[in-house]
Amino acid sequence: MNKFQVTILGCGSAMPTTLHNPPSQLVEMNEKLFMIDCGEGTQLQMRKFKARISKLHSLFISHLHGDHIFGLPGLLSTLSLLGRTNDLHIYAHKEIQLLLKPLLIYLGNHMQFKILHHPLNPDQHELLFENRSIRIESFPLKHRIATNGFLFMEKESPRHMIREMIDAHQIPVKEIQSIKLGADFTRKDGIVIANDRLTTPGNPARTYAYCSDTAYTTDIIPRIKGVDLLYHEATFAETEKVRAEETYHSTASQAAEIAKLAQVKRLVIGHYSSRYNELGVLLKEAVEVFPATELAIEGKVFEL
Amino acid sequence: MNKFQVTILGCGSAMPTTLHNPPSQLVEMNEKLFMIDCGEGTQLQMRKFKARISKLHSLFISHLHGDHIFGLPGLLSTLSLLGRTNDLHIYAHKEIQLLLKPLLIYLGNHMQFKILHHPLNPDQHELLFENRSIRIESFPLKHRIATNGFLFMEKESPRHMIREMIDAHQIPVKEIQSIKLGADFTRKDGIVIANDRLTTPGNPARTYAYCSDTAYTTDIIPRIKGVDLLYHEATFAETEKVRAEETYHSTASQAAEIAKLAQVKRLVIGHYSSRYNELGVLLKEAVEVFPATELAIEGKVFEL
Repeated sequence: MNKFQVTILGCGSAMPTTLHNPPSQLVEMNEKLFMIDCGEGTQLQMRKFKARISKLHSLFISHLHGDHIFGLPGLLSTLSLLGRTNDLHIYAHKEIQLLLKPLLIYLGNHMQFKILHHPLNPDQHELLFENRSIRIESFPLKHRIATNGFLFMEKESPRHMIREMIDAHQIPVKEIQSIKLGADFTRKDGIVIANDRLTTPGNPARTYAYCSDTAYTTDIIPRIKGVDLLYHEATFAETEKVRAEETYHSTASQAAEIAKLAQVKRLVIGHYSSRYNELGVLLKEAVEVFPATELAIEGKVFEL
Repeated sequence: MNKFQVTILGCGSAMPTTLHNPPSQLVEMNEKLFMIDCGEGTQLQMRKFKARISKLHSLFISHLHGDHIFGLPGLLSTLSLLGRTNDLHIYAHKEIQLLLKPLLIYLGNHMQFKILHHPLNPDQHELLFENRSIRIESFPLKHRIATNGFLFMEKESPRHMIREMIDAHQIPVKEIQSIKLGADFTRKDGIVIANDRLTTPGNPARTYAYCSDTAYTTDIIPRIKGVDLLYHEATFAETEKVRAEETYHSTASQAAEIAKLAQVKRLVIGHYSSRYNELGVLLKEAVEVFPATELAIEGKVFEL
């Protein structure tokens, strides 16, 4: 199976602490490296966790709160110093231009690569990127300002040919592609070999959903239904439920409730308020509702 | 003596590494906290080294290369989140407005404090700040873009009264201030007591000079002559002397040469190129020229 993994670079929230960096994640799929959010120090975290910065394909910015974007100047500057020439795609709300434009003027003389900004639609579900094997979508979250969640999806791969059957039935090379796509094979002697004798199922189409920052909202469930891995913010514990509502954030048990309703396979919680030196309470509250919950932590890699 | 100390928050250079953060220092004098330069992650370093972020009085930005300023958005945002109301003075080249202006528009709605930007004169020596006990000056360095060094000076303190002499000679309170400033005291019986029997010398006026980034230039010597502590960049070792010249940086032995010519008491070197995993070679080359050299390192505190 192709590599599909999520690395946590930062899982704190607005107020940085000595325990957690501001939000950022790397999603690696099929030799492509995607970044979600880019809080201050993200490029330093990439170095710490030995991420291959040159492989960075594009950036997905959920919303324009400082803790999700203040690592951009340093990251872009370093990509420039490293001699990047490939275009860099940034998917972010249109207002990022307020900060991006002067930054690009500032960096402009030295940059050998283009930044292509794709404004996100904050109001509806949207396809952002697609190639032969990957599909990336955005969808609205419920926060104080326009905020998007992201869905990283593999496309279902063709079925795997059983090599031994090629020789056994003398299957010509030109037939193989259609067999991988599900066709049966008719031998010269007229005997039909059913596809499921010739192939094994293709790789399942794995999916990862990122939901941060957001208040509790079941509106997102159709978008994240059944994903293999869900990252959902859990800024607060239940004792701070009112505060969560006021600030359009979620509690750990609300995150777990969403995971349960959406029937996802695994949940990762993060975006911890700086008041929690110890995350046990958040994990405990989430696990009570949705047992397959794990804590995000800087440097942790979640394999799909 | 009043506290006068320099804390290294970052002593790397343009390319961040896992060993060194981008440049930033804190100068604490007389209960006031001054910051020099503010590379990405500076606010995180302040937390790590338990600096009292609320005490921050003003910022001095040597020049507008990204490694010296990309920590500003996060720092200003955090000061705002912490509810700062005191004005914050930023001494920096006038072109910082290109980045500061959109940032302040971005942060504007929430900020309860004013940013007062004082444009630095890149061409000549200038007084930036003065109060009863402190004087801060800037002076030109020699770099690819307009760059300033900074001089933090204590004013000489009044002489210290010897308490026992107040009783012994029945000195009235109203006379004490003039005695501290050097006056003799005439007793009621007409006997004159010389000042040096009544007082001990005041604290020496200590000085700290910051010189980064800069090529080797003896032009700065009149400004930094005899300082107690000199921070001078030492980006390269002697093997990279040509590269140092091309990029308007200094080698370790050039930094030491400046320290020697300026007859400073102690030298601290920093702004290490990312190529040096091990700093022994830089220290060795500097010590050969100027023995009282130390290496800057994140978290290290230099007491004056």
